[in-house]
Amino acid sequence: MYDIVTFGEAMIRLSPPYFRRLEQTNLLEVNVGGSELNVAIGVRRLGLKSAWVSRLPLNPLGFLIRNKAREQGVDTSHIIWSKSDRAGLYFVEFGASPRASKVLYDRKNSAISRIKMGEVDWKNILKEAKLFMVSGITPALSESAKEVTKEAVKEAKKAGCKVAIDLNYRAKLWSEEEANKCMSLLMEDTDLLFTTEEDTFRVFGIRGKNYEEVAKRLDEKFGFEVVAITLRENISVWKNRWTAIAYSKGKIYRTKTYELEIVDRLGGGDSFTAGCIWGYLQKDLQKGVDYGVAFSALKHSIPGDINWTNIEEVESQVKGAGLRISR
Amino acid sequence: MYDIVTFGEAMIRLSPPYFRRLEQTNLLEVNVGGSELNVAIGVRRLGLKSAWVSRLPLNPLGFLIRNKAREQGVDTSHIIWSKSDRAGLYFVEFGASPRASKVLYDRKNSAISRIKMGEVDWKNILKEAKLFMVSGITPALSESAKEVTKEAVKEAKKAGCKVAIDLNYRAKLWSEEEANKCMSLLMEDTDLLFTTEEDTFRVFGIRGKNYEEVAKRLDEKFGFEVVAITLRENISVWKNRWTAIAYSKGKIYRTKTYELEIVDRLGGGDSFTAGCIWGYLQKDLQKGVDYGVAFSALKHSIPGDINWTNIEEVESQVKGAGLRISR
Amino acid sequence: MYDIVTFGEAMIRLSPPYFRRLEQTNLLEVNVGGSELNVAIGVRRLGLKSAWVSRLPLNPLGFLIRNKAREQGVDTSHIIWSKSDRAGLYFVEFGASPRASKVLYDRKNSAISRIKMGEVDWKNILKEAKLFMVSGITPALSESAKEVTKEAVKEAKKAGCKVAIDLNYRAKLWSEEEANKCMSLLMEDTDLLFTTEEDTFRVFGIRGKNYEEVAKRLDEKFGFEVVAITLRENISVWKNRWTAIAYSKGKIYRTKTYELEIVDRLGGGDSFTAGCIWGYLQKDLQKGVDYGVAFSALKHSIPGDINWTNIEEVESQVKGAGLRISR
Amino acid sequence: MYDIVTFGEAMIRLSPPYFRRLEQTNLLEVNVGGSELNVAIGVRRLGLKSAWVSRLPLNPLGFLIRNKAREQGVDTSHIIWSKSDRAGLYFVEFGASPRASKVLYDRKNSAISRIKMGEVDWKNILKEAKLFMVSGITPALSESAKEVTKEAVKEAKKAGCKVAIDLNYRAKLWSEEEANKCMSLLMEDTDLLFTTEEDTFRVFGIRGKNYEEVAKRLDEKFGFEVVAITLRENISVWKNRWTAIAYSKGKIYRTKTYELEIVDRLGGGDSFTAGCIWGYLQKDLQKGVDYGVAFSALKHSIPGDINWTNIEEVESQVKGAGLRISR
Amino acid sequence: MYDIVTFGEAMIRLSPPYFRRLEQTNLLEVNVGGSELNVAIGVRRLGLKSAWVSRLPLNPLGFLIRNKAREQGVDTSHIIWSKSDRAGLYFVEFGASPRASKVLYDRKNSAISRIKMGEVDWKNILKEAKLFMVSGITPALSESAKEVTKEAVKEAKKAGCKVAIDLNYRAKLWSEEEANKCMSLLMEDTDLLFTTEEDTFRVFGIRGKNYEEVAKRLDEKFGFEVVAITLRENISVWKNRWTAIAYSKGKIYRTKTYELEIVDRLGGGDSFTAGCIWGYLQKDLQKGVDYGVAFSALKHSIPGDINWTNIEEVESQVKGAGLRISR
Amino acid sequence: MYDIVTFGEAMIRLSPPYFRRLEQTNLLEVNVGGSELNVAIGVRRLGLKSAWVSRLPLNPLGFLIRNKAREQGVDTSHIIWSKSDRAGLYFVEFGASPRASKVLYDRKNSAISRIKMGEVDWKNILKEAKLFMVSGITPALSESAKEVTKEAVKEAKKAGCKVAIDLNYRAKLWSEEEANKCMSLLMEDTDLLFTTEEDTFRVFGIRGKNYEEVAKRLDEKFGFEVVAITLRENISVWKNRWTAIAYSKGKIYRTKTYELEIVDRLGGGDSFTAGCIWGYLQKDLQKGVDYGVAFSALKHSIPGDINWTNIEEVESQVKGAGLRISR
Repeated sequence: MYDIVTFGEAMIRLSPPYFRRLEQTNLLEVNVGGSELNVAIGVRRLGLKSAWVSRLPLNPLGFLIRNKAREQGVDTSHIIWSKSDRAGLYFVEFGASPRASKVLYDRKNSAISRIKMGEVDWKNILKEAKLFMVSGITPALSESAKEVTKEAVKEAKKAGCKVAIDLNYRAKLWSEEEANKCMSLLMEDTDLLFTTEEDTFRVFGIRGKNYEEVAKRLDEKFGFEVVAITLRENISVWKNRWTAIAYSKGKIYRTKTYELEIVDRLGGGDSFTAGCIWGYLQKDLQKGVDYGVAFSALKHSIPGDINWTNIEEVESQVKGAGLRISR
Repeated sequence: MYDIVTFGEAMIRLSPPYFRRLEQTNLLEVNVGGSELNVAIGVRRLGLKSAWVSRLPLNPLGFLIRNKAREQGVDTSHIIWSKSDRAGLYFVEFGASPRASKVLYDRKNSAISRIKMGEVDWKNILKEAKLFMVSGITPALSESAKEVTKEAVKEAKKAGCKVAIDLNYRAKLWSEEEANKCMSLLMEDTDLLFTTEEDTFRVFGIRGKNYEEVAKRLDEKFGFEVVAITLRENISVWKNRWTAIAYSKGKIYRTKTYELEIVDRLGGGDSFTAGCIWGYLQKDLQKGVDYGVAFSALKHSIPGDINWTNIEEVESQVKGAGLRISR
Repeated sequence: MYDIVTFGEAMIRLSPPYFRRLEQTNLLEVNVGGSELNVAIGVRRLGLKSAWVSRLPLNPLGFLIRNKAREQGVDTSHIIWSKSDRAGLYFVEFGASPRASKVLYDRKNSAISRIKMGEVDWKNILKEAKLFMVSGITPALSESAKEVTKEAVKEAKKAGCKVAIDLNYRAKLWSEEEANKCMSLLMEDTDLLFTTEEDTFRVFGIRGKNYEEVAKRLDEKFGFEVVAITLRENISVWKNRWTAIAYSKGKIYRTKTYELEIVDRLGGGDSFTAGCIWGYLQKDLQKGVDYGVAFSALKHSIPGDINWTNIEEVESQVKGAGLRISR
Repeated sequence: MYDIVTFGEAMIRLSPPYFRRLEQTNLLEVNVGGSELNVAIGVRRLGLKSAWVSRLPLNPLGFLIRNKAREQGVDTSHIIWSKSDRAGLYFVEFGASPRASKVLYDRKNSAISRIKMGEVDWKNILKEAKLFMVSGITPALSESAKEVTKEAVKEAKKAGCKVAIDLNYRAKLWSEEEANKCMSLLMEDTDLLFTTEEDTFRVFGIRGKNYEEVAKRLDEKFGFEVVAITLRENISVWKNRWTAIAYSKGKIYRTKTYELEIVDRLGGGDSFTAGCIWGYLQKDLQKGVDYGVAFSALKHSIPGDINWTNIEEVESQVKGAGLRISR
Repeated sequence: MYDIVTFGEAMIRLSPPYFRRLEQTNLLEVNVGGSELNVAIGVRRLGLKSAWVSRLPLNPLGFLIRNKAREQGVDTSHIIWSKSDRAGLYFVEFGASPRASKVLYDRKNSAISRIKMGEVDWKNILKEAKLFMVSGITPALSESAKEVTKEAVKEAKKAGCKVAIDLNYRAKLWSEEEANKCMSLLMEDTDLLFTTEEDTFRVFGIRGKNYEEVAKRLDEKFGFEVVAITLRENISVWKNRWTAIAYSKGKIYRTKTYELEIVDRLGGGDSFTAGCIWGYLQKDLQKGVDYGVAFSALKHSIPGDINWTNIEEVESQVKGAGLRISR
Repeated sequence: MYDIVTFGEAMIRLSPPYFRRLEQTNLLEVNVGGSELNVAIGVRRLGLKSAWVSRLPLNPLGFLIRNKAREQGVDTSHIIWSKSDRAGLYFVEFGASPRASKVLYDRKNSAISRIKMGEVDWKNILKEAKLFMVSGITPALSESAKEVTKEAVKEAKKAGCKVAIDLNYRAKLWSEEEANKCMSLLMEDTDLLFTTEEDTFRVFGIRGKNYEEVAKRLDEKFGFEVVAITLRENISVWKNRWTAIAYSKGKIYRTKTYELEIVDRLGGGDSFTAGCIWGYLQKDLQKGVDYGVAFSALKHSIPGDINWTNIEEVESQVKGAGLRISR
């Protein structure tokens, strides 16, 4: 029924307009974002069928989050609704050099942190899915969220789904030791790993002289079908350089590097994950890397976590679109 | 040092612009509000010195709340700062008949709910204060907030402060039984009670054929210096009728009735409390009621919980200001 | 698969903020609206499954329209996509007495006006549907839209679907004669008719001394299962009185009258249609009328054509909700 | 060349959005307004040719004011440009009952207050004009503005222009004695007087038992061709009742009364003046009064001082337009 | 009467704020733009008298477009008003690297596309004009617009006006073959040609090793008084490099190159055209090129198609203004 | 009582949003700014106690200015309130290369320009202060402001306060000769001088081959404890390079250079002054320079004159914070 199923939290994202600090603002822009929802939306915009599994409060904030997924054509029928919990929130301040952008989380005790084993009907949801994706954020949310993540991964393997994990280490949610313990276990069932050099070092203590070497060492340690690593160079807050590699069965897949003018970098990495999975499922990893980097490069130019581009625009980037106004 | 000291929570208030529902909004207006802060600001705008005591998180949201109090000239030097807790939030949807306005709270585990006995230096704060004010919301926030409320009231009596309590029953925070038990105890030390007919019935089971009778019965039961009751008639969501009485030592103090066009009714009752206390401290309860109703009538015409009017404007209402444009 | 299928145009709706005239504005608020989409959304919000069939341009404006339907959980998989046509637009100016609100259409040559017989797979779409709904706007859009409307109605009858039609006469789209000819024909297959006194007179020349009589005469002429008539009294632009009746098999179903403070009256009638159908499908026409009027009364308090309320809120109106702030 | 020439100040008008107080705002909406400019625009929108004479600073604020006149098709070629002075400003707070709307002026030392005799080429400007209009505000701005007003009126009479004066007393600009002295002199050359009961009493000490009598007494004292008086009843801040009369050669011209929902009442009186002059110049005073009241009734529904309606809309009001949405 | 007369379409331009995609926006900013209107405004801001001829619908959108021309002091008295047609619209999405800005047109069947031969009184309009300007967009709008363009050019030559044409090829309006045929014909009467290397190649198949050579070859083929070519280098979407040359009677006129931070590049080329014509009419082509490039460089820093600068600011750029804040 | 006392004007600052020109705007953002208020706020945010002395009109604009100081915790109890004067205003247009940002002042006759000797109780205010700060703007406002500045400086010296002066030459307020005369006199009592190379040359005619030399020559001429000079390099309007030095007793204190992405550069220099004073008062001038440059670098990324950062963020810059998003 679905090409891809993802599992995780999406939060209400509140951000002051035009570089204002949170402390000074009298207006907040409302968006919705969360790693796994971003990926579910990303693959949907590229043409695949996706479902996003989560737990949300039965109130206008929960509906708002659900609606944004639905607006993008993502299946939301497996969301668990809670009558008593809250929606996770986060606040983003957009910066300008030398002030980096900053996130303030208010996500404790959110509905998904209270999810319980057995609440989600994984068997049914995953039965014809091609791939299950989750990030390292979900198991970090709470003990029970960790258990449900493991449950889902196990069920995915049983159902013959590929498992893709984005390492996504969040220091505010758990320590490096906790992350190492949990993620190492999950790696056993992971087919595709998405990570960065920094997260790899913090969670697994693995380092290399470049990101090709990091990929290889990860593969040596855990044995993946694909390891993909994104590389962001922060020339300034408003200007980044962006690229990625994938490593699969001894081969490195490279792609071009994009010069980015940053409107909103949140969700950038998730777009790469989406694009890469999209190509992988077509059994063309080079395409996955190329489209993934292009898709995520475009994301940085769009306000909000959602990647409001389409396959034609991504294709045009891969082929070398110019910067002239298109009319 | 202060004429008035108040103690309670102020929250970040988030509201969609122009009658949008929360579920449909992509913008939220940011205000700050909370019963006791509103009263501290109200008396300050009328010319008294006030301090507001609370507990806030040491983050931009906590600073934002503190700043808004400070902007109004309220002393904030006794706020307790928490490094780990969150700021209380609430969401307001403004309605139009037949859709009433609606509040969604997200205040659990806020910094003030974790306040502890002994954290506030009440002795020092209250030493020269004339009046201490708290509402029924503060003790409802948590067990420890209840303890600190009692501690503060005791300390106020010791310091020779008058104690004013706004009953303010919140069904989402505690049951009628819990409220009855705690508030009955607090009534023993209360000099001025502010309430409505509905709250009086819900918390104390006291009813009367009109609000004068309710006031008398409250006085019979607990023995106050002043009982003040506000009366709101909801002609429609955008049009209310508004008045109040005070009862003191067998005498009823009445005032005129205002026809209100409602821009934002939050904080309306708190403005009455502020105005009434202001008059009471001048030993002129009739003035207190008259200015209190006028001050709160004006509040309903102003966005946000804060009453951005001044004593000249209130005076002009009491004297019978017209509706012509003033130039 | 669907409880209800509707067919018609939804347009990009552009309106200047806060009572500005179109000629003076430098900002336009973007909403999406159209009678049949509004109904499909309305029944969905009340808990039914619905699909909306239309024809849209394959461009961001077409996607925006589709997304808004999808956001509400309405099935959009049967939309026909056009590579060359445009999206219909309309502009709304909101008024204040004595200036009535005003609509300027720019919908000529929209994608749906070029829909062709056979383009929609009605058989499949309607196969398990309980009810098919269309308004008098759809056949007025173009000759081919008229043909497809007839085709859909025929197919609905074949599939055993109930047919509901909202008369919705639009003088800018066709003459009274043209409307009479086409709508009279459609009435033959109509089970539920939604109309107003004015439209009934303009299209069918039928009048009565009150709306009960109009309903009866319509029934006498065409023979319906249900005729429902809404009644709006324009006390002022910002204040309306609103009610409706239904007539079925000789019996009148009445409901209470709501005093409305008008935020945005567009989509008000469609909400009544949705609510009434919802009750009708539960075989409780009285409930349909009661919930329909309450649901549409609430709509008038919400910006945009979409009715962002839910079944609990409607129920609460039917039971007599007050106007006090709900917290 | 022009049907009508007006002379006076137009200011930058700054107002906080949505009922905010000036003290609390972080945004100001920018409009342009001034009695004589409003009249020049009003008659232009009704189809006449008009010029507006003023003195403005040669800076972006002066250009902004000039542009808004030009946008409406008013001739601005006779504006005197000053290299050193400032543009007049005023701030408007919009109220809600019981808080009346309020204006704060910051117009001292504006460019027009430093206009000098001989700076304007009145002879040339007025040579083919039918009517010259000025309000009592212009001579109140400064001694030299008073001189230039007298100069203009004298020149108008010489050129065979009708002279229309709107009494418009502004207590912040001059005393009643000063106004009496200057305006009494100007009355000698005045053909049409526009006033209210209150201003008539304050400036001329003339009172009557109703406004018909006030008109007659004014006529007895000064001898006019037309005296027109507007009457505003402030039911509430958001709801007014509005009408006017004209008195000419012993005859009273009455018109219907409008119930107004107030969006922005500034410029309302000026629209009446414009409409009345428009009818007067067609030698149909009844039409002038009818269209004047309708035109000004519509003004109250539109943000800003400018009356963004047209002759068809005014006509439709005079004929009795309904309040239903127009589509 | 006019120094310059231009003829063409101006559209309502709708753009989402702050880099939002059209599909995601709930607000649109309203501007007005069109090549020939932009030029008429440009020369007016530099001090010349100009008229803009067009055909507009008699509705608020048509008035809005007319008003914006009038606001800038451009004569609009020769606009043809249509009771039945629509205003052309276009949507602009502003991008960030690597996403280029993008235009979506909705201009089919606009009022000007239905203009007819003889509708415009060219003889009278052009009788004392110094120069007539039109772009390659106008003849591309429709067959009749093409005929009226030819008619206007013929009439201009008869009246002794110089003819300036901006090649402005729009692939969405006509093919290269159609453009070639029509524009080649128009070149016979063209005195000044404005173009880019790309458009020159697409329409005339003419190429060169640099833009000086392109200019020469154009001159060889058609024989102009002036050929001017602008050159934009897209370093990134937010950063461009900008310059131009003119070629006249064997001589190249060069100017300095500007580094641009791009706020809104629409109308940039038209500002160059305006500035260059302004210098040309002073018989100083070098000044035309210098001021044209400076004027258009400034345009890129201003939202909207209109160049809100003035001659002093342009002069200051030509002389080498710094980037320090000016106070 | 205070660590630092500053004296000067703060104005209402009005700026069009998003790069719009003043002439084209219909909205103005409201901020408050002025050199000495900015410094008082700056040191307060870094943890010191400060008071700001000024003279303001007793109206909503005066209150607004006072409130913004109070919001930041700056003592405002010594402000002199005027019943008749106006608040100073200034308008800012934000630019993009090659258009520099631009300020238009409307500050003549502001309340502070009419301050009188003896109105401020300097003795009391300064009695326990460590440092008094004023800029060269204050004495330039009017003759009486000049006198009061001298009075304040004299009183500061008497009270044993250090005196810090920011040269801040404003050509629109006084000539270089006037400035030279007044500032030379004030230099006699100055302990810390803040300046730029350009201002030093314009006011004192002092030049050097680099800014170290300028500092030395200033010291040679006047004899300071500290001379600090900021250096801004305008790479483009949106990109600056920023650093500073201090010179004290023959020693140069250098700091690193920041690459700035400019959101709003107003108040940038004042933040340096605040940071430098903060370090100086800790008797660590190197820290003052380091923190001053970091603090002011951050200011450029924040809308408005106020520096909404805190000591932790400044420290993190000094230690070398990265540009990655902080979460």
